[in-house]
Amino acid sequence: MKPAGISPAPASNRNVLFIMCDQLRADYLSTYGGAIPMPNLDRLARRGVRFDKAYVSSGVCGPSRISYYCGRYPVSHRVTWNRVPLPIDEKMLGHYLAEGGMRAHLLGKTHFVPDHKGLAAAGYTLDARHRMLFDEGGFDAVERYDGHFELEAHSPYRQYLIERGYQSERPWTDYVIGSLAPDGSLASGWLLRNAGLPARVRAEDSETAYLTTRAIEFMQQQGDQRWMLHLSYIKPHWPTKAPAPYHNMFGVEDCATPVRDAAERNNPHPVFGAYQQLEESITFAGEEAWRTVRPVVMGLARQIDDELGRLFEHMQSSGRLDDTLIIFSSDHGDLAGDHWLGEKEYFYEPVMRVPLIIADPRTNANATRGSAEQRFVETIDVLPTILDALGMQEVLTQAAQRIEGHSLLPLLHAEPIGAWRDCVFGQLDYAYRQARQFLKRAPDECNGTMVRDGRYKYIHWQGYRGQLFDLLNDPNELHDLGADAGYTPVCLEMQQRLFEWLRTRKRRTTETYQQVDARTHAHERMMGIQIGKW
Amino acid sequence: MKPAGISPAPASNRNVLFIMCDQLRADYLSTYGGAIPMPNLDRLARRGVRFDKAYVSSGVCGPSRISYYCGRYPVSHRVTWNRVPLPIDEKMLGHYLAEGGMRAHLLGKTHFVPDHKGLAAAGYTLDARHRMLFDEGGFDAVERYDGHFELEAHSPYRQYLIERGYQSERPWTDYVIGSLAPDGSLASGWLLRNAGLPARVRAEDSETAYLTTRAIEFMQQQGDQRWMLHLSYIKPHWPTKAPAPYHNMFGVEDCATPVRDAAERNNPHPVFGAYQQLEESITFAGEEAWRTVRPVVMGLARQIDDELGRLFEHMQSSGRLDDTLIIFSSDHGDLAGDHWLGEKEYFYEPVMRVPLIIADPRTNANATRGSAEQRFVETIDVLPTILDALGMQEVLTQAAQRIEGHSLLPLLHAEPIGAWRDCVFGQLDYAYRQARQFLKRAPDECNGTMVRDGRYKYIHWQGYRGQLFDLLNDPNELHDLGADAGYTPVCLEMQQRLFEWLRTRKRRTTETYQQVDARTHAHERMMGIQIGKW
Repeated sequence: MKPAGISPAPASNRNVLFIMCDQLRADYLSTYGGAIPMPNLDRLARRGVRFDKAYVSSGVCGPSRISYYCGRYPVSHRVTWNRVPLPIDEKMLGHYLAEGGMRAHLLGKTHFVPDHKGLAAAGYTLDARHRMLFDEGGFDAVERYDGHFELEAHSPYRQYLIERGYQSERPWTDYVIGSLAPDGSLASGWLLRNAGLPARVRAEDSETAYLTTRAIEFMQQQGDQRWMLHLSYIKPHWPTKAPAPYHNMFGVEDCATPVRDAAERNNPHPVFGAYQQLEESITFAGEEAWRTVRPVVMGLARQIDDELGRLFEHMQSSGRLDDTLIIFSSDHGDLAGDHWLGEKEYFYEPVMRVPLIIADPRTNANATRGSAEQRFVETIDVLPTILDALGMQEVLTQAAQRIEGHSLLPLLHAEPIGAWRDCVFGQLDYAYRQARQFLKRAPDECNGTMVRDGRYKYIHWQGYRGQLFDLLNDPNELHDLGADAGYTPVCLEMQQRLFEWLRTRKRRTTETYQQVDARTHAHERMMGIQIGKW
Repeated sequence: MKPAGISPAPASNRNVLFIMCDQLRADYLSTYGGAIPMPNLDRLARRGVRFDKAYVSSGVCGPSRISYYCGRYPVSHRVTWNRVPLPIDEKMLGHYLAEGGMRAHLLGKTHFVPDHKGLAAAGYTLDARHRMLFDEGGFDAVERYDGHFELEAHSPYRQYLIERGYQSERPWTDYVIGSLAPDGSLASGWLLRNAGLPARVRAEDSETAYLTTRAIEFMQQQGDQRWMLHLSYIKPHWPTKAPAPYHNMFGVEDCATPVRDAAERNNPHPVFGAYQQLEESITFAGEEAWRTVRPVVMGLARQIDDELGRLFEHMQSSGRLDDTLIIFSSDHGDLAGDHWLGEKEYFYEPVMRVPLIIADPRTNANATRGSAEQRFVETIDVLPTILDALGMQEVLTQAAQRIEGHSLLPLLHAEPIGAWRDCVFGQLDYAYRQARQFLKRAPDECNGTMVRDGRYKYIHWQGYRGQLFDLLNDPNELHDLGADAGYTPVCLEMQQRLFEWLRTRKRRTTETYQQVDARTHAHERMMGIQIGKW
């Protein structure tokens, strides 16, 4: 891989490749000091900037992804959990790119759900092109693949599998997440006890490889066209199942032991206690589950790196490494037994903090290559970064009343910038979780809101006391100080930050700042109205 | 007028008449103990309930009206000031009525502006019927008339005036707001110095009479059809001009003297100080303006009452008083010199507290007839009240995740209800005002948020200290306690209420509570997904 940026910096990048993983925690990766060797990601980080404090705005797929694609917090785009339809006035990445004359091509997962009911109720209709964009949330789907078997029947991946010889009515169920038990019977990929068995699919035909191959084909097909591609892997998200040799590439001796303390189960915060009672939490609270699952997750992550190697090699040989800004991230992290919880959600660092690496090949990014950025960034920054990278500054300006994130290019280009954010925010709506039933709460009484600054993490829970962690003295977040009267002043200060944040969300979206300026004190000039004249 | 409610209470009202005035303060009216005899409004209040603590959610036409029509606060519907287009995912009164099989007919003003730009950007198209609804914010416009001369050219009212002999290219400018000066020259209705001169239009052809006549015609044309009519007068809003005999029906001796104190001009809160510097404030700070304008405003209010008498007489003779729920209110109040301010906006009681009278002819409202309700109500309650009155409880249930107001029928029907709100909320976005220029603030730095409970009114200002008034000891709001360290605990408590309010706004609008319930802990049942199973 040759170092990028040997020609004078062009005004914009020709292409943008935005790679997303699903449920990949940062601290597992060699790039972030973890145990999984990720040589290709390491190489990307050497070509770009590794963001050490990158936070998602929600610890679950749906709202987090929409925040990436809208550049807005869930409180603003209002997709508070998985499969909540996006309000029909929101704009996604593809809509902004269209204003700049490009398309947002999609390969893989978005978890986006359109609000068909809202569209019909309003009486809005669509032509074929806009119908497609509406259905895919602004993306041009090269291939949408959310990784759920429910979609299998309509998936080109299903056809691919059958053509490749995986003969079944349900090739994803039987081969991609299916294994053979030692006794020769089919072992369901849904059950974690079977996680360590190899998938019946060959690695080269697994989801990660398939999507990578499709990405390479996509780039080949673009020819002289500039492009923006969202390559959105669905791993290492459940079902936890890896093909050989990744299924046993790592052992339990390679794994981090779950970060948890018996005291966390003793009189926990009510919402934390309810989450501890979810089935995945109970499963991962035992020793067997994490010892079985974590090595497979590591293998799946390593497979992504191998596929990235194949992808980057193609990009290098075709010249694309020199003219493509690459973003690598994940929609959220993973718990797998940390804090007695399974899966994701909640607000712990392994979930909210994600890998984020951005490599800009232009010479004006030379000064920061290989550096680790310590300032707080949020994944709502990815959308404006993409627009900025593609030279769509005017689109950004016209959307300043709507986009809440900030382009990260000034950080990559080591430009002098003024004040930067000193805290990050997150949200959780657990209305859809059994935790709500445990707590007997109504669907509109389940909001949690997090603010995390350089020292503290405070979580405000609707109807309950807040939680507070001192990350300086308790980096593992084992001691909830929210009920400690000595920390009341800290809690109140953090509440003030949340209050300030809520007050300043971008709600007046239908007029640009330029329009507001033009209409300020303009009633007489623009409309001939005279008010209060004697 | 015979007393209503002599037959068994039907499950719903046949019709709803929602009368809105513009800039009519409550305390001027005899119905609220004021100096303007309003015999017909008094009679309506004897038939119904007078709400003594009814508050608008913003002190300016645009956002306040949209709050009435959406049943949501500005922070939710996002129309923060006049002529800000409504986001294309919002629903208005007419949309809800359509779900119940009825239409929201409009006569008069709404101040609604559609978001054509947003619609086009999303690629949504509309058939003729939905285009009309889109353009009018869900209303079926019998006649939209916003009372601005700019619309005159397209107005049936203009044609009416010409047919009635007001020969001019600009009959509204020359006759409706135009007067003759003593020397025979034309005296502009825009200038307050001319407010006391009679309009050249005859009272019977003035805006208030014209809209009333159109309302009577509308009712006559409905025949056996149930109907909902929004009769939205544009007076006593500027231009302050009354036809004879209303122009001098009241004298300065009938007027309340402006509530203001010299101390309010001494080192005021920065935003208050900026509002004091607006042209209308400077004009009304003098003695001449209020002495000239207030009597005319009283005459215009009295004219509304006379026209209400004509309307109610028709309704009585046609039987409509017996089957029509009537709501009377105003989009906000008026200052006209109070607190050294002119016009409206800001958060003082004369602006935020409005008249609200609701008469339900059904027998189940008998117990409350003629009573004065002291509980806090907000004008976001009007929309759910209308739906409830028309028997559209299912529509209300399906919109519970969106509508923030509460039906007032339980109060009218003296039904046992649980906890009721103990405070009200208001908002102001002064980005469009010269006050922003005085304060050199950006378009997104101009939000004020009010909470008023039984004792205190607290206003949170972006970038400045809050303001606090003790309405128990200072009912005229002359002493701002916001900078008084002794009241810091009160200010912090009021901030907590604002924080709670902001956190609990209804944002997840695209799924009903029933849908949330159905999807809660349903991944396995609905989608066959197994998470965390060993």
